Amino acid sequence: SRPRELGVPFGVLAPGKLNAITDVAGVKVGHFTKIEGDSIRTGVTAILAHGGNIFQEKVPAAIYVGNGFGKLAGITQVQELGLLESPIILTNTLSVAAGIEGAVRYTLNQSGNESVQSVNAVVGETNDGFLNDIRGMHISPEEVIATIQAAKEDLVQEGNIGAGTGTICFGWKGGIGTASRKLPESLGGYTVGVLVQSNFGGNLQIGGVPVGEKLEKYPFRNAIEKADGSCMIVVATDAPVLSRNLERMAKRAMMGLAKTGGIASNGSGDYVISFSTAESLRSAYSAKSGELEQAEILRNDDMSALFMAVIEATEEAIINSLFAAETMEGKQGRTVEALPKEQVLEWINKQ
Amino acid sequence: SRPRELGVPFGVLAPGKLNAITDVAGVKVGHFTKIEGDSIRTGVTAILAHGGNIFQEKVPAAIYVGNGFGKLAGITQVQELGLLESPIILTNTLSVAAGIEGAVRYTLNQSGNESVQSVNAVVGETNDGFLNDIRGMHISPEEVIATIQAAKEDLVQEGNIGAGTGTICFGWKGGIGTASRKLPESLGGYTVGVLVQSNFGGNLQIGGVPVGEKLEKYPFRNAIEKADGSCMIVVATDAPVLSRNLERMAKRAMMGLAKTGGIASNGSGDYVISFSTAESLRSAYSAKSGELEQAEILRNDDMSALFMAVIEATEEAIINSLFAAETMEGKQGRTVEALPKEQVLEWINKQ
Amino acid sequence: SRPRELGVPFGVLAPGKLNAITDVAGVKVGHFTKIEGDSIRTGVTAILAHGGNIFQEKVPAAIYVGNGFGKLAGITQVQELGLLESPIILTNTLSVAAGIEGAVRYTLNQSGNESVQSVNAVVGETNDGFLNDIRGMHISPEEVIATIQAAKEDLVQEGNIGAGTGTICFGWKGGIGTASRKLPESLGGYTVGVLVQSNFGGNLQIGGVPVGEKLEKYPFRNAIEKADGSCMIVVATDAPVLSRNLERMAKRAMMGLAKTGGIASNGSGDYVISFSTAESLRSAYSAKSGELEQAEILRNDDMSALFMAVIEATEEAIINSLFAAETMEGKQGRTVEALPKEQVLEWINKQ
Amino acid sequence: SRPRELGVPFGVLAPGKLNAITDVAGVKVGHFTKIEGDSIRTGVTAILAHGGNIFQEKVPAAIYVGNGFGKLAGITQVQELGLLESPIILTNTLSVAAGIEGAVRYTLNQSGNESVQSVNAVVGETNDGFLNDIRGMHISPEEVIATIQAAKEDLVQEGNIGAGTGTICFGWKGGIGTASRKLPESLGGYTVGVLVQSNFGGNLQIGGVPVGEKLEKYPFRNAIEKADGSCMIVVATDAPVLSRNLERMAKRAMMGLAKTGGIASNGSGDYVISFSTAESLRSAYSAKSGELEQAEILRNDDMSALFMAVIEATEEAIINSLFAAETMEGKQGRTVEALPKEQVLEWINKQ
Repeated sequence: SRPRELGVPFGVLAPGKLNAITDVAGVKVGHFTKIEGDSIRTGVTAILAHGGNIFQEKVPAAIYVGNGFGKLAGITQVQELGLLESPIILTNTLSVAAGIEGAVRYTLNQSGNESVQSVNAVVGETNDGFLNDIRGMHISPEEVIATIQAAKEDLVQEGNIGAGTGTICFGWKGGIGTASRKLPESLGGYTVGVLVQSNFGGNLQIGGVPVGEKLEKYPFRNAIEKADGSCMIVVATDAPVLSRNLERMAKRAMMGLAKTGGIASNGSGDYVISFSTAESLRSAYSAKSGELEQAEILRNDDMSALFMAVIEATEEAIINSLFAAETMEGKQGRTVEALPKEQVLEWINKQ
Repeated sequence: SRPRELGVPFGVLAPGKLNAITDVAGVKVGHFTKIEGDSIRTGVTAILAHGGNIFQEKVPAAIYVGNGFGKLAGITQVQELGLLESPIILTNTLSVAAGIEGAVRYTLNQSGNESVQSVNAVVGETNDGFLNDIRGMHISPEEVIATIQAAKEDLVQEGNIGAGTGTICFGWKGGIGTASRKLPESLGGYTVGVLVQSNFGGNLQIGGVPVGEKLEKYPFRNAIEKADGSCMIVVATDAPVLSRNLERMAKRAMMGLAKTGGIASNGSGDYVISFSTAESLRSAYSAKSGELEQAEILRNDDMSALFMAVIEATEEAIINSLFAAETMEGKQGRTVEALPKEQVLEWINKQ
Repeated sequence: SRPRELGVPFGVLAPGKLNAITDVAGVKVGHFTKIEGDSIRTGVTAILAHGGNIFQEKVPAAIYVGNGFGKLAGITQVQELGLLESPIILTNTLSVAAGIEGAVRYTLNQSGNESVQSVNAVVGETNDGFLNDIRGMHISPEEVIATIQAAKEDLVQEGNIGAGTGTICFGWKGGIGTASRKLPESLGGYTVGVLVQSNFGGNLQIGGVPVGEKLEKYPFRNAIEKADGSCMIVVATDAPVLSRNLERMAKRAMMGLAKTGGIASNGSGDYVISFSTAESLRSAYSAKSGELEQAEILRNDDMSALFMAVIEATEEAIINSLFAAETMEGKQGRTVEALPKEQVLEWINKQ
Repeated sequence: SRPRELGVPFGVLAPGKLNAITDVAGVKVGHFTKIEGDSIRTGVTAILAHGGNIFQEKVPAAIYVGNGFGKLAGITQVQELGLLESPIILTNTLSVAAGIEGAVRYTLNQSGNESVQSVNAVVGETNDGFLNDIRGMHISPEEVIATIQAAKEDLVQEGNIGAGTGTICFGWKGGIGTASRKLPESLGGYTVGVLVQSNFGGNLQIGGVPVGEKLEKYPFRNAIEKADGSCMIVVATDAPVLSRNLERMAKRAMMGLAKTGGIASNGSGDYVISFSTAESLRSAYSAKSGELEQAEILRNDDMSALFMAVIEATEEAIINSLFAAETMEGKQGRTVEALPKEQVLEWINKQ
């Protein structure tokens, strides 16, 4: 069972039905996990904004850089045009090329894209090189394509899976986590879903408890530990918002990360990719020149509840990743322990 | 007569009726010129996006920083919300405070704004301190308010007027200039209007003629001249474009400036403020919470002709400012000569 | 006594001697408080990077926009040149013009600046219009100058003072707060100081306790409350860092704000101004052309501890502002209560 | 012979010895050209900031986005850290993955990088899909590595070579072009070198002559032509400038592009990558924690001549690419003609 069910508090807004990014209707998630031999501990996670042809029916999107020590691909076109035209791929740092090639080949081969000559693949990564033989570059474009094809609407598996297979968070085993918020109808009834690949450091805080301090695991404790690592965050919503307000939502995800104790250290590649599934805002590749887009757009003044939803869901998704991840042994006999959940819950429940 | 009528070529798109920013329907311009005694040579120019209450009916807008050695006020709110809610004020560098106070007082006192407690004034400036006693801070908030109130749709005066009273461009007397482009109906029929306050340096080029070189007036000629100075550029359009594409249009204005030989030197404050007058894109201050905005928006794919229009109109507006400006004597007996137009035209017409 | 002394926990790094921005050697702070009659509840706070002539000896600086619904002036030149050349002024939203005029006049009149014709004043604001007759624009340039002149190194008063006189935070009386961190010598021994003008909303959390929820005061509780408001944050350090890394430090201040429960709502003007007092990085206005600047610069890899210091000090400065602020009555007989500290401390100490 | 030698004027600053990016000491360029059968017309160009281990001795760098309809990889880390740690790779749009994989494998395998687990590859592209079977993705990582290894200081070949093999510019055959400027000793004596992969559209202007209009080849002439395409621009200098001022230099390259008539159309991926080879500014990967970097840095006030050098060299590099490129036949029997140089020179020499 997940932290929320175990009594960990996460703000005031209600989660969606699955408490997952797939609560945003149409969003699909696929995982490919590669655990082989002593030292391959990596994988791929794909997030699809909708089940159709994303290149033909682009969605409003934004990417915000929390800290840019990372290799994320595809950012400038998303920022320039305000649109996402590919599946979002998460993987390890040295497999970004495989991620791009997979997303590009998948798109070129989709029915209807026969004459397409340009594809902007959005590929994020974190570095799983402590447990994984990352220099071996063990992800292939074919595995990326398979991940995309396996994506589905439904429950999202968390922990040591997909792009989270080999990641580390606050010194404990990290991984994939997800959560969502559903605004009350009086605030529009919109859903916000978040998925994270947690691989960063800081001074862990859960439900108000300074877990990092209590477990004596936090940066610079002996003036030597580092807090490096990264976090990829994907934010989906069905609210009708264009790229400018999606970027503002993306910025708030870093505030949710902050609430877990993350510090966005120098070596962190912290990126937030946000998109809207609102059908009225899709941009058709085949639209006729001169034809205006008819859009229904949420006003700036109605954004604040969505901001709060992003903050809450991001915090919860990160903690979910820590609770779902299990102890893993990897490269060079190294072991990364799972968070001592019993202990943490005891502290939380005592409050 | 203006350069175009004298045979100076400016690209391939047709100008609007007035070849001025006021070709964009509803846009109003006001000038206040302050020439007093030996050393006051300054002024104010106000540009209004429409004739109504701009705070109540905000317009989509963007501001692009070509080179940020300047004191422009109001940029971050325009960038965050994508909206302009005040008149645009241009003046001298040390009178930005007067510009803000004037625009704020004007807005607070407009009918309908009785309970308004927050106004984002957009005020740009260039430094006229060579001819003007700028340290005297000779512009008052009342003069700014009067400038706004005097703004009108119609012909825009150019040269030594308003905020261009004391400016210098390419070593010659600069000032206010304006121009416009009207796209053919097949490209949407939209109008783009530009107004500049020219006060910058570089290697002047007009109609393809290297005027700066021929007149031996260009930066670093003797490894000592500077190219400092600034240019404020205002871009108006009736095309239905939101802030993201307005920012892209604003960026192109710097490309028009580049065609005149400007180099955006270290000491330049080069800013472009762009806005759309499209009525369907106005944002009502009094809108009800939760109500979606209905928008008709031009597609990214249809932006290129507007980009070209901005480039052409900006180049022409700058050259117009040089042709309209007349020799001026100012502070400390200094004189800045008008561009030797006869000579320039002779070169151009010989081609 | 301040929260830390009362048992509120704030992370793992040690504060400086005063636990204030003035722990960064040379930094001076001045307050001007204007409480008059029933409805004037406002003021000015000035922060000086050093006690010399800041225009002549500019310091490395950055400004980060957390959420740009605000009127901060001076940002683009700081971003372009990486330098601060004026005192930092904080005041109310509609007195930014007075702030600029005061900072400009102060600078023009400083000895050595007799020929200066261009001054970039950095002026931030939050909106105190709930308690203060903000439309009255009750701050004058002379009062701004007096605030600058009264600035001193030493203890910084907190709460209802200076620019914090009339502000509101999480629904309680906010104000000025400050805190600092001193890194251990093994991490460089640098000091980071933070000062805030707290005027924002969200779901208040103190020392891990969800105070907002317990006191039933948080946004959207009845789907009607707003979380609007703003926060100005100033970050000083003696670490030798240039503008790029100062901007990264500034970004982390928003993570500290997030830890208090702030959500950077749509209507928030959240800005972080950061600067370094390192003497080797000052930029002399009178430097000879062609002369290279000799700089000693901290490496990217050594930034993380400073990031953590900013996060911790910002969180503490905000909570300090809430503990120091006292109940205030203002405009239209409105009262804003002080945070119920006894109750909060009881919850915290029970943990 | 090149345009300059044929009488085409390009501003007032003197070129370096080779009039090429390799005038900046230590910079190396490699080309790989792939012309096979009827439809493969593509290639790779690699630019190395120095001949050593770039990962171990990183150089200050910046990337500026003129228009972001492109797939350039590696931007966020360069912007965050201000450093370049890999060769710069230029290729076609759908081969960015191969470019990344090649640059990463090359770096991982360099002597001294045995434990490196993270590499930020900077890979730019333009779309050569009119002449080239771009969907075939005909570039392999091995070919990228070979291009890097073949890079050399010396003359740089221009035209239909490397990444410029299949590109189109202003409707004529484009390709690789390069140029440089050497400032007089009184201005520091620094060198600026530029290399372009020209593949964009607009209203071509050469030496002041409106070539596009005279040849009746410009956008929207019949309200149907497009100006799409892209331009990759690499700017090298030996001036001691860090990332902030390198970004400012990069921005000026777009002003040089503007002078050729480019309009940065909606579909353009226009990027400028700039770096400094100044040895005192290199950042050693193996530096000890806590050790300060000793830097000698050019002052902001001394940047303007470098800005002018970038503008002039970029304009010349683009025109050089057009003069060097030859008529090419490619995919589907399509032919792209070379610029009618004789005609153009006749016009220019008549002036």
